[in-house]
This record gives sequence, structure tokens and C-alpha cells, in this order.
Amino acid sequence: MAKAADDYFKLDPWKIIEEGFDPEYERVTESIFSLGNEYMGIRGYFEEGTSGDSLLGSYFNGIYEFSRKEALSHYKGIVTKPHFMLNAVNWLDTEIRLEDETLDMNRVHLDDFYRELDLKTGVLTRSFIWKTKTGKQLKVRFERFLHMEKSSNGYQQLSFEPLNFSGDIHVSMGIDFNTKHGEEPISFWKEQEKGTLNDQGDLAIIGQTLTTKQQIFSGFHLEINQAYEKKKIEAEKKISYSLTIPLTKNEETIVKKLVVNVIKKQEVSKDVMWQEGSTALADSVKLGYEQAKKDQKDYWTYIWDHFDIQIDGDEKNQQGIRFCIFQLQQTYHGQNPSNNIGAKGLTGEAYSGHAFWDTETCCLPYYLFNNPKAAKNLLEFRYSTLDAARKRARDLDCTGACYPIATLNGEEACDLWQHASTQFQPSTGVAYGIWHYVHLTEDQDFLYDHGVEMLVEISRFLESRGDWSQLTKKFGFYGVMGPDEFQVMVNHNAYTNYMAQQTFDFTIQVLEEMSVEAPGQLKQLLTKTNLTEEEWRQWQHSAEETLFFESEDGVIEQHEGYFDLPHIDIDQIPISDFPLYSHWSYDRIYRNDMIKQPDVLMFQFLYNQRFSEESKRVNYDYYEPRTIHESSLSPSIHSVLAAELGKFDEAFDFFSFATRMDLDNYNRNTNEGLHTTSIAAAWMNIVYGFGGLRSDGSQLILSPVVPKQWDGYSFRIEYRNRIVEVKVTRSTAKISIVKGESILLSVYGEERLIDAEGTELAIPKEKLQQV
Amino acid sequence: MAKAADDYFKLDPWKIIEEGFDPEYERVTESIFSLGNEYMGIRGYFEEGTSGDSLLGSYFNGIYEFSRKEALSHYKGIVTKPHFMLNAVNWLDTEIRLEDETLDMNRVHLDDFYRELDLKTGVLTRSFIWKTKTGKQLKVRFERFLHMEKSSNGYQQLSFEPLNFSGDIHVSMGIDFNTKHGEEPISFWKEQEKGTLNDQGDLAIIGQTLTTKQQIFSGFHLEINQAYEKKKIEAEKKISYSLTIPLTKNEETIVKKLVVNVIKKQEVSKDVMWQEGSTALADSVKLGYEQAKKDQKDYWTYIWDHFDIQIDGDEKNQQGIRFCIFQLQQTYHGQNPSNNIGAKGLTGEAYSGHAFWDTETCCLPYYLFNNPKAAKNLLEFRYSTLDAARKRARDLDCTGACYPIATLNGEEACDLWQHASTQFQPSTGVAYGIWHYVHLTEDQDFLYDHGVEMLVEISRFLESRGDWSQLTKKFGFYGVMGPDEFQVMVNHNAYTNYMAQQTFDFTIQVLEEMSVEAPGQLKQLLTKTNLTEEEWRQWQHSAEETLFFESEDGVIEQHEGYFDLPHIDIDQIPISDFPLYSHWSYDRIYRNDMIKQPDVLMFQFLYNQRFSEESKRVNYDYYEPRTIHESSLSPSIHSVLAAELGKFDEAFDFFSFATRMDLDNYNRNTNEGLHTTSIAAAWMNIVYGFGGLRSDGSQLILSPVVPKQWDGYSFRIEYRNRIVEVKVTRSTAKISIVKGESILLSVYGEERLIDAEGTELAIPKEKLQQV
Repeated sequence: MAKAADDYFKLDPWKIIEEGFDPEYERVTESIFSLGNEYMGIRGYFEEGTSGDSLLGSYFNGIYEFSRKEALSHYKGIVTKPHFMLNAVNWLDTEIRLEDETLDMNRVHLDDFYRELDLKTGVLTRSFIWKTKTGKQLKVRFERFLHMEKSSNGYQQLSFEPLNFSGDIHVSMGIDFNTKHGEEPISFWKEQEKGTLNDQGDLAIIGQTLTTKQQIFSGFHLEINQAYEKKKIEAEKKISYSLTIPLTKNEETIVKKLVVNVIKKQEVSKDVMWQEGSTALADSVKLGYEQAKKDQKDYWTYIWDHFDIQIDGDEKNQQGIRFCIFQLQQTYHGQNPSNNIGAKGLTGEAYSGHAFWDTETCCLPYYLFNNPKAAKNLLEFRYSTLDAARKRARDLDCTGACYPIATLNGEEACDLWQHASTQFQPSTGVAYGIWHYVHLTEDQDFLYDHGVEMLVEISRFLESRGDWSQLTKKFGFYGVMGPDEFQVMVNHNAYTNYMAQQTFDFTIQVLEEMSVEAPGQLKQLLTKTNLTEEEWRQWQHSAEETLFFESEDGVIEQHEGYFDLPHIDIDQIPISDFPLYSHWSYDRIYRNDMIKQPDVLMFQFLYNQRFSEESKRVNYDYYEPRTIHESSLSPSIHSVLAAELGKFDEAFDFFSFATRMDLDNYNRNTNEGLHTTSIAAAWMNIVYGFGGLRSDGSQLILSPVVPKQWDGYSFRIEYRNRIVEVKVTRSTAKISIVKGESILLSVYGEERLIDAEGTELAIPKEKLQQV
Repeated sequence: MAKAADDYFKLDPWKIIEEGFDPEYERVTESIFSLGNEYMGIRGYFEEGTSGDSLLGSYFNGIYEFSRKEALSHYKGIVTKPHFMLNAVNWLDTEIRLEDETLDMNRVHLDDFYRELDLKTGVLTRSFIWKTKTGKQLKVRFERFLHMEKSSNGYQQLSFEPLNFSGDIHVSMGIDFNTKHGEEPISFWKEQEKGTLNDQGDLAIIGQTLTTKQQIFSGFHLEINQAYEKKKIEAEKKISYSLTIPLTKNEETIVKKLVVNVIKKQEVSKDVMWQEGSTALADSVKLGYEQAKKDQKDYWTYIWDHFDIQIDGDEKNQQGIRFCIFQLQQTYHGQNPSNNIGAKGLTGEAYSGHAFWDTETCCLPYYLFNNPKAAKNLLEFRYSTLDAARKRARDLDCTGACYPIATLNGEEACDLWQHASTQFQPSTGVAYGIWHYVHLTEDQDFLYDHGVEMLVEISRFLESRGDWSQLTKKFGFYGVMGPDEFQVMVNHNAYTNYMAQQTFDFTIQVLEEMSVEAPGQLKQLLTKTNLTEEEWRQWQHSAEETLFFESEDGVIEQHEGYFDLPHIDIDQIPISDFPLYSHWSYDRIYRNDMIKQPDVLMFQFLYNQRFSEESKRVNYDYYEPRTIHESSLSPSIHSVLAAELGKFDEAFDFFSFATRMDLDNYNRNTNEGLHTTSIAAAWMNIVYGFGGLRSDGSQLILSPVVPKQWDGYSFRIEYRNRIVEVKVTRSTAKISIVKGESILLSVYGEERLIDAEGTELAIPKEKLQQV
């Protein structure tokens, strides 16, 4: 499918730049200019308000509400009240008046509009000259950023410089809980307290959600570099200062607003909340605006020193991949194990802020090789929600633990039974994630303390949900859906069967290992989970007897009967029919051999070393022409495998939208928020795809190739207390240890000792691409 | 599954009698004592109001509204705003006060409570002695009935006889549109007009639905056999007379209320409505209460003379089957082709009043053999909604016409995609109904005028929805659900494939016949439907290549892969798990070989003569132990086939709840309304089951057997302008023509000429049952 780039933003290796203002593009730029620090996220909306088409979105990781929509059907195991990430406080609330004009980007006359997100500092700035009807010219500049470590701290700065007049400007700045949720446009907030915090006149307000009773304390402190008058304004769910500031021609007046947003996912008394918020604001004031800005710059300097990917000769992908790393880092960096990664991060309401199985399969590798603590925290999130997964399994009449398709708090939030009751990739994905993490980090403490308990409960669930065929006497899953969501209620889906088999195998392996290495912990585990050896021997039996069907040519059948389904030539589907979910009758999508995203190739990617190149090639060649890639993860997996199979043009084609999916608005829905988990896939595309990293074997593998479109590229990965750097030119790959001790790695199929000096190798001929 | 009878009503061959009042049973008795005349239906609620648990239900065939509930998902082809039969005007609205007491059956002191529905007259009466706190004793009697032919006419009578006092009674009688819908308890009515109609002081009100803009004019006339005072009372959506009537000790005072309810399914001006209603009420007054009651008695006398089933030696089933016939006749008797038969008739709101495929497969036979005009009207309903079915096919990205799973107005009203987008038995059922009707009546006019157009559009739909398998190159249906709703999204469901094949075959047969018999009409049809011979040859090809799989033993596989599904021993399911939909996780029901109702046996019943006894036996023996009969149609089909296969005990077991399903409240949900379509199945059970009627071959077949529980039974059927009577004793069956000419019938496998004198035969030995 052809996709068109908007080419809206200016190219720059380190900045996202918007020159000139296009009101039609407002929701897209709001997404692109989102700031986040894992704790909170804020879309790039105009804080002074706008009459344009805007989603004033302010989100906090783990602050959610339940839908008010009434479910039409009530069957056991079907979610009737899904929860969603709730649009929260507008802590940037601002109003600016000059004479009789209110600043509204869509209505006033503007010149020299310029907006910039600096990826090196994490600061978003906007400037323009406002010309009033009476001819006054005022230079206005906005700045905002979040503190990446003191994560309740947000910062806003306004500056005004009159170019041809002197006179008063009226500015109102405050906190507003009257936010309406975009997807269900009613207010889910009530005011719990508000008022003046201290002698300095700092203001604050506590908002509370109606149903979940979660709280946010939002308080602010103002600093202005000159004299002004202020008046406190209180309204329902809102508190602010109305400021009158005399401006002097050609002099810059600067207003700084230091905000703290303290959240409580579990209700506390409002007095406790008020006190805690008050202290937090005082600390922030003490730290000061400029120091915070410096902290922020230092933070990003560290990130780029460690995680940067450099691409030579391709400015677009260079900018794209840095934007990806920047946004992924903003969304999640392992600050708190109660956080997870929503499909849109903290940048919009689509997918309700939910975390999906993408977390373990798609995002986890990025953290495994950049920030193992964050990787561990993602798994700790699953451990902390194990009880919710146990409950979900019971709701499905099963035992053990079933991880939800979509969640914020660990409970299932997907109200479509055909997904929530039949897709088990979240559960097998968690098991895969544990395996992958432990395999790479050798973190046995985590495995024995928390990992194995999840493995046991997931295996138990799989055993209870699986079943045995009547004639062939084989084990597998009935009435399921694999990652390919175009095949509903199928039997023996190869992905589900395979991943379950691996889960059983790994669980048994860990249990057996513990019986030797940690018999005491094993005993505790058996007691805690009521596990018997008989039960785990049954898993072994199921794993051994799991059904797979392979054609004579070696194609693994995606599910029982798939090969005999009616065929669709997907190239014949008119482009106007896409996305199919919007243009095809719902059931029509589901009754042919067209697939949305790969099932077989997916597990061949995850357990890459267990399949021969021939098997991967045969399956790639069979399934790729049947795949329409309606999931954004699909091109990524294909790109990685294509690179492995020497299909370099295909690899680059599938990669081509990855880094700039949102910057160029390829899917025409960046207005709804960023494709955060696809962003993680873009990183995988380069590191696993072109870099040839494989992390599922006994040794780390690297087999870099360079796309003919590039002059070269380099990336760094963290691995067992080392930083490994990979630098690729058009003909060579140099691998060296930047930090830590030497290590044995497999490069281009040969084991090599890599040290600080590095090993430079010619790219093998068969992997070289003609330019 | 064991079911327990409530045994609440007194046994009587012609009456339903309630002696003594049980407030706990109020909703059940309201359903049982429902009156209807196809045009309208009214539950047996206490018109004077009650503080008890009541569903004040008043329904009109074709008066509907749309749900206000908001759909959670919006995909193409999925219904988001289902429509439902709307609870309408309370035209019996009454209030009765004596001294300071208001008559409330749940609160006042009552003696000698007696309620009776007389099946010979269609009149419902209720009487009791009301003892006030001050010791006054008043004998009260209520009476109500509907006119079966002048169907807008309803009648209500109150009578009062003071046993130990004289004095005033205060009675208010009127019309009230403040009815709330039971299932979505808000008012969907607004008042359009109300006031005094004429010099006699008759009152009326016009109510209109909020969204569909349908109207009901409801007016009434009072007659009282003595002097009284009256005062008009108007309130919102309500109009009534407050009457003060002086009662005299031991004298009976009678209040008669003549009501007309004129409905408009399409909006007309309120002036036109007022005028039409006024005339209708004047006509009703002219006819008079007593004459209407006499009309009513005559109507039912005709019905019992023609349609009665007599059972000797089984009082319970005798009462049961007459109640069934009575209620079926009340629900539908072919008055108007815009009416259909809801799953609960006009007796409650469960299933939203919708008509399902039961109409053609289950109800049609009753009318075919009792009232062919009614049978034709049921098919005309489908013809009148052909455009809606065409639109539905387009919604599903198909061509032709797809009849809805559930409907009142022809549009799909089922909001569960897994049913509405994948179940095609309504469409093949209509084709089957046309075939069955024409086969029995030889009504070629209907076939060529309307039937064939439906057949063409249904075939066209089936062709567009069907598909070809990639390996076996066979035709069939993918992603469908047969009547057995426990197997979701299956391929090559045998029922769907078989019925589609029959539809194609019959359509082609009719088209070929027309090319000889009615070439002009055929030409018109081809023009109207844009049909080409090429298209219908394609149907022929599809029919010829339709896939079926039969095991070596002759078991027809219910769908591709069914035989290999995990097995469930349904006898091991605890009784407390039923109904499964309430106790099992939704998806759990769908992934094993348990079936809800028969698919293979169903088409072997419908096209009975095309299958050998051996085939029916093998399939019965295979599928019956896997069937949990969670649909009330299931036992009926099994009973009929069991009788054919000589499994007499099973036949009677499956029959045993049929006639008294509601009278004995076997399913514990009669409170929600009667199981109207099951009632039709009860008739089939006797006539097709024990009577051995088969109507799908070239000659009508009768093979009566007699259950050992009965001394004998008799029934009559109408067939090609004759009335055929079948009288069965313990050892003989006598078949005779009661009206019309002699005819050749097949009796016990031999062709016999049946005439007025009748043919008496001994029941063959193998069909005799030991008592």
C-alpha cells in the first residue's frame, strides 16, 4: 500500500521544527509536540486556549476511569465497564489579553510563527509576533518542559516583548480540572479542595475522579521578572491568578510558572494530599526553574550518549529515529513498576491508554538493551497485577492467571469478547518476556522471586484453557485468535500453540533448575501456588503433544484448516478499501486466507534461532503475500526477517515508514496520539533488522548489513554491564566495547572476542548491497 | 435435565383457572392470562393497578422504538440501534375506591378469588369478595376480551355487588400513555391530542412515539346500568372519568367500557387520526358490548370446530395443547401481512417482540394446515420487507437479500454480530417457507408474483456470501453459525450448506418452470432483478459443488472439523450450570462438540423424505447425546424424529414439556411472556410427531402412533380445500375427510384413497407401544 508523507516538519537531526502555523494540522502537532516523563504526559496544545480543532490532553500514568456507556450484552467473562486513561488536569491553563483581543492562534494576526521541540534538551518552545487590530506588535514566546526525574514537576514560561508600544497585558494563569474527556466528553472530575497554599500566595487545587476516587494535587508558583498586580480567581474546579503586567517597549517580560502534580492512585485524605503537595511545590521552588532546565539537559545528554542511533546519509530517518527514541524514553524509562506503556503512550486517548502485549514483544527489547532496570520494571508491573490476572482466568472459567489484552490497572479492559476471551498472546508474551529478560540478564533473583510464580500461573491457565482433539488426540487451543486478528475463533492457531508450548517448556525448565539450585524457594513456591509435580508433568505432556501442521513444503499452517480457506488476492483490493475495518463488513474480513499481521513469522522472529533459514524463507514467501499489515507491528517483523533472508529491498521498504510514522503522519491518525509501540518497533528494525542482533540464542549475535540508501550507521547496546558499540559503513562493521570488559559475541556467524579496541570486519559479500 | 412443574393452575379441558391469589406469581399469571388478537395484545395485569411485582404490558403488532443504549463498537454491518416492540397505552386504566381504601390486590383483604380464561369464548374474568377494614363486603367481578376480527376493539367490564351495605363507590376509568417500557424503563410516548370526542362525552387521546413517530388513537365509551355522577380528569398523557356510583345492597352494578385503539405505523396528521378513531369508536358503540362478546364466542367456536386437538386420557396435555392453540391463534391468524409472530407473541418484552426464523420453520406448518391464507401472509410479510433485506445484504458487502435474524419492521435488530452477520437460516428459512407453502397449496400466483423474486434475491445473496475452498475446490459458507449457536464462526456448516443448496435448486427449478409456463412473467422478473441466465447457472454450479462430509458410518459432519473437536460428556455437567449462558464463560460454550440444538437433524426434519431412515437414525444417535437442548425448539425436533424412528419413550420425553411449557412454568421464565413459537412446536409435536404427518414429499404422509400415556387423540388438518380428520385409539387410526373431496394419501407407507366415510387401520405392530 502506498502511503504519502505529509512533509510538514522541517528536517533537522536534533529538532522537530514547525515554521508557519496551519490550523488544520493542530491535532497532529499536538501529538508530535507531546511532552512526557512516564509519570505524566501533556499534548502540545496551546495553553492559552484555541478556537481551533484541539484535544486538550493531559494524562497521568495509571489515572483512569470507567466508561459510562451501557453494555448491550452481559455474558460471563465479557467486560461491561471498560476502564480508560482519563484526561486530567489542565495545569497549563492560561489566558492572555491585550487591549480587547484575546490571544487565540486561530483568530489573531500572527507573524513569524516558529515552534521547536529540542530533542537534546526536551524543551518545547513557540514564538511569534502578535499584531493587534490597532497595530500593536507583541513578540510572544512560550516554553515548557517536564522534569524527567522529579517527575511531578512541570514548567511553563511565557515571555512578552512589545515591539512598538508600552502598556498593560492581562494574563491569567492557573489550574483547571474542568477538562472533558475527549472520547467520552463529560467531566469525570470533582473538586476536593482548593485555595492558597502559603504566604507566597501559591495556589493549589485537589481534583478527584468520580468513580475510581483517584486524586491529583496540582499547585503552582509564579515568578515574574518585574512588578505586576495579581488577583486570585476561583471558579468551579479551577483556581488561577489574573495578572496585570505593565510591558515596556523592547523589553522582555518573563513569567515562569512552576507546577507540581502529585497523584494518588489510591485515595488518601485530602489533608494528607494537601500537605504532600505543598511540600513538593516548596521543593520545586527551592530547586528553581533554571536548575530544573539544566537537570533536563543533563538527562538528555546522558540518554543520547548511551542510546543514540546515528544514521549517515539519510536525514529523514536520522531525525525520525531520534524522535522515536525521545518519545519512547518520555513514555517510559522504568521509573515505577506500577506504570506501563500505552499503545499511544501519554499522548492521546485512542486505545484508551491501554498497554497491550506489545509491551513484552515489541518494547521490552529496547529496554533490555538500553535500560535493564526499566525492562525488569515492565515485568514487575505484570507481577504486581498477577492477582488481577488470576481473577481474569477465573472469569473465563479457567485456573491460573490470564493476562489482559488491554489494561491500565491489570484488569481486562477490552470489551470485545472475540479478543478478550480468545487472545492469549498477553499471557504467553509475559512468559516470553520473563524468558527473554532472564536469558539476557541472568537475573535469577527476579526469576525465582517473581518470575517463576507468573510462569506457573500462566502455564496453569494455558493447561486449563487448552484441550485435546477427539480424533488426533493432540493438545492445542480451540476457539482462539492469534496475533493475526483476521482469523476469529480458530482451532490450533500455530502461534498460540507454539507460544504455549514454549511457556510450558520454560516453566518446567525453571522448576527443575530450582529443585537443584533453590530447593527451599521451590518448596515455598509449591506451597504458595499449590503446585504439584503431577501438575507440571501434565504440562510437559501437553507440550510434547501440541499439534502443528506443516505442509510438504515446510509451511507451518496458521491454524487448522487455514490452507483450505478461500483465497483473496490482496493486491486486487482497491486502496480506497483501506483500512478494511472502516470499509468492509466486519465479518467479511474474517473468512479467507488474508491475514492482518503475521502469526507464524512472529514466533519465528521471537524464537529466531530455533528455525532454519530455509523454514523462515518458506514461511516468509508463503505468508507475506497474504498479509495486509493492518497492524503497525507487521511491517517491522517483516523488515527484520527480510534483512535476515537477504531481501534487502523488501527490508528497507517495510522499514521505510517506521521511524517517521508519526512525523509524516503516514497513517493519517497521528492526531489521535503517537504510535508509541511502533516507535519501539522502529528501534528493533534498525538494531535487529539491519544490525542483525539476535538475542534468543546461547550467544548474542550481530550480523550488520547496511541499506543501500545509507552511508552508514551506528548504535549502542547495553549488555551484561557493558556498552557495545556497532559502527557500520558501506563496507565494514566495527564492533567494540565502549564500557566494561571484553566479551565473546557471534559476528557474521563466527564467535569473536570483542574488546575496547574493537573488531572491524568487512561485511560479507552476500550481505553487501549494490548501490 | 429435570424440569419441575409448578402445577399452579387447576386442570380443566377448556379453561385456565386460578383459585386463590398468590402475589409471588403475579408476573407469571399476567403472561398466562394474556389476551391478543394479532393486532394488539395485553398482559393479564390488574387494571386497577397493583403494588405487587407486575409488568403492565400492552403491545401492538408493529409498534416499535429504537434502543437508547449507546453501542460500544461501530463496525460496518453491526447493528448499533436495535429496535424493539414498545410497551404502549394502558387502555384498561382503572382505579377503584371504597371509603378510604383503594383496591390493590396486594393490600386489601380478599376472599373467594377466582380467575378464569375461557378458551371457548376468549373471555378473561376475575372475581372476589373485597372486605374493607370497616367490614363492608363487596363482590367484585372483572371481565375483558378483544374482538378477534374488528381488531382495534377492546372490552372491559366491572361489576359490583355489595353484600352487606349500600353506598357510593368511586371508580376512575380512562386511557393512560404514561406506560414505561419494562426493558428500558423510560417513557417513549408523547401526547399528541386528547379531549372529549362527541356529545356522549366519550374521551380519547392520541399518543405518539418519540423517534419512530408512530401513533395510537385510544378512545373509550362507558355504559353503566344505573345512575351515576362523572367528572372528566385530564393529566399528562392521560385522560379519564372519575365516577361516583351509588351501590345498593345485593344489587349488581355493571360498568362497561368499550375501547378502540387505532394504530398508525406511518405517521398521519392528528386530525385524520382523530376522525378515524372517532368513527371507529362510534362503530364499536353501535355494535355493542354484548354483540361483540357473541362475535367472539362464534369465532372461537369456529376455531375449535376446525383446529381442536383432542387427547384422551391425559388431562394435562389436553388442557396444554388447547392453551397452545388458543395463544397461537391470538398471536397471529393472518389478519395483516405487515404482522409477524414474535418469539413471545404480544405477551412480554423478552426478545424485544422480534420475529425470528422460527416463523417459517416452526410456526408456518401450523398455519399451512389450519389457515393457508395466514401462511401466505407470513410469506407476504417477507416480501414486503424484501427491500430491507436487500439493504441488509449490502450492509454485509453482499448482493441480493439477506433476511434479518430478529426484526419487527424488516430491518436487522440483532446487535450481536456473531449472530446477525453469520446466521443465514432466516434467509434459507424464507426460501424453505416459500417452497413448503407452494408445495402444499400449489399457489403458483404467489410463487410467480412474489415468491420467485424473493428466491432470486436470496440465492443471489447466498452466492455472494458463499465461497470456494482453496484445496478441495468446493462451495460452501465460511465464518458462519448454523441453528446450533454453540459453534461460532465455523466453515461448511452442514445446515447452512444444505439449505443454501436446496434454495439454489428450488430457485432454478422455478425459473426453468417459468421459462415454459410463464415466459412473460419470467422476462419481467429478469428485468426487475437484473438476473441473467449466466448468474443462475452459476448457482447451479455452486449447488452441485457444495461440500458435505459424511463419516464412514453415515454421520454428516456438522461443520468442517467438528468430529475432531474436544468432547464434552454433557451428562457430567452439573444441573446448577444451566442455563449455560448464565453460568459459563461466554467463549467456553463454543469450543467443544456440545451443541445447543440440532443442525443436521433439523434439515433432516425439514426435508424429511430425502433421507433414509438409516441416515436419520445414525445421525440422531450420534448428535442427540451431544445436544443440550438449550433452545426450546430442540426437544420438539427430537420428539418428532424419535417418533419416526420408533423411539417412543424418547419421543414422549421430549414432548413432555411442550404443551405445558408456560402453564407449568417449566423454564422459570414465563413471567417474561409466553414461549409463543414453542407453542407452535407443540402442535408440530403431536401432528408431525405422533400423527406422523410428513409434508415434504410428493404425497402427504400420515403414520399415526399413540403414546402409551394416552388412550387416544384426534386432530384435523386443512389440505387443498379439504378438512382431514385423524382419530387415533390405542390400536387403530381412522382417517377421514370431514369436508371436501376424497384424496389419495400415504398412510403407514401405503397409498390410500381417503373419503368422507374414512379409512380405519390397525396401527402396525412395530409402531404399537406396550402400556
